[in-house]
Formats: sequence, C-alpha cells, structure tokens
Amino acid sequence: MAMSEYQVTGMSCGHCEMSIREEVGQIAGVENIEVSAQTGMLVVTGAESVDDAQVLAAVEEAGYSAVRAI
Amino acid sequence: MAMSEYQVTGMSCGHCEMSIREEVGQIAGVENIEVSAQTGMLVVTGAESVDDAQVLAAVEEAGYSAVRAI
Repeated sequence: MAMSEYQVTGMSCGHCEMSIREEVGQIAGVENIEVSAQTGMLVVTGAESVDDAQVLAAVEEAGYSAVRAI
Repeated sequence: MAMSEYQVTGMSCGHCEMSIREEVGQIAGVENIEVSAQTGMLVVTGAESVDDAQVLAAVEEAGYSAVRAI
C-alpha cells in the first residue's frame, strides 16, 4: 500500500470534495481517497504509488489546485 | 411575470448554486432562477407567482435553508 498526501486549495463544501473524488477516482491504481474541504487535505491510496502529476492534473480538472504535502 | 426573492443560508460555491437551481427548477411554473452563493440571494420568476412553500421545500431538499426576502 502506498499513500500520497496533497494540500488542496479552494474547496468549500461537500460538493467540492465530491468533484475531486470523482476526478481522482478515475486514475488507474487508486484504491481509496480521503478528502476534506475543512482541512484541504487529500489522501490517495493505491497498491502502488500513484503518479503525483496525474493526481494534480485530476484536482485541476475538478477546478481546484493542489501541491504534494508529504 | 411574478418575481419572488429568498435569502438562502449555507451556500458556499457554484456547486451549491447548481444544487438549488436543480431543485427549484423542478417546480411547475418556474421560468427563471437567479442564485448567488456570494450574496445568498435566490430570485425565482414565473408567469404566475410561485408557491413559497414549494420553493422553501426545494431549497431544503438541496440541503440549505431559506426565508422569503420580499
């Protein structure tokens, strides 16, 4: 299991969390997503490490911006 | 044309506006909806006056609360 953590800017509500969840969930290999509008944290888990560039692009596609946190 | 104005509590972003637009748009007789997360205002227009109770119920269905403003 590999876990990647990102700090997302711009989420304000549960709809925003859902938008990010939908986009990041389309990345191959992603098995679990934790996302919080309150803290801005996004934690993506997969059997193998996910590609940061893909995650950041998915977040941008949802209308937000993110940076790798850990 | 009849216009009814409501003050909505709890909207934070464009997704919230969209949720309210979808629910209020299902009310018979509604011809136009203006909604702003920034100001909280919801303006519903129809050929005949819309039923406040239906609008308030639709807003609640979307997950927010509202009061008649004018």
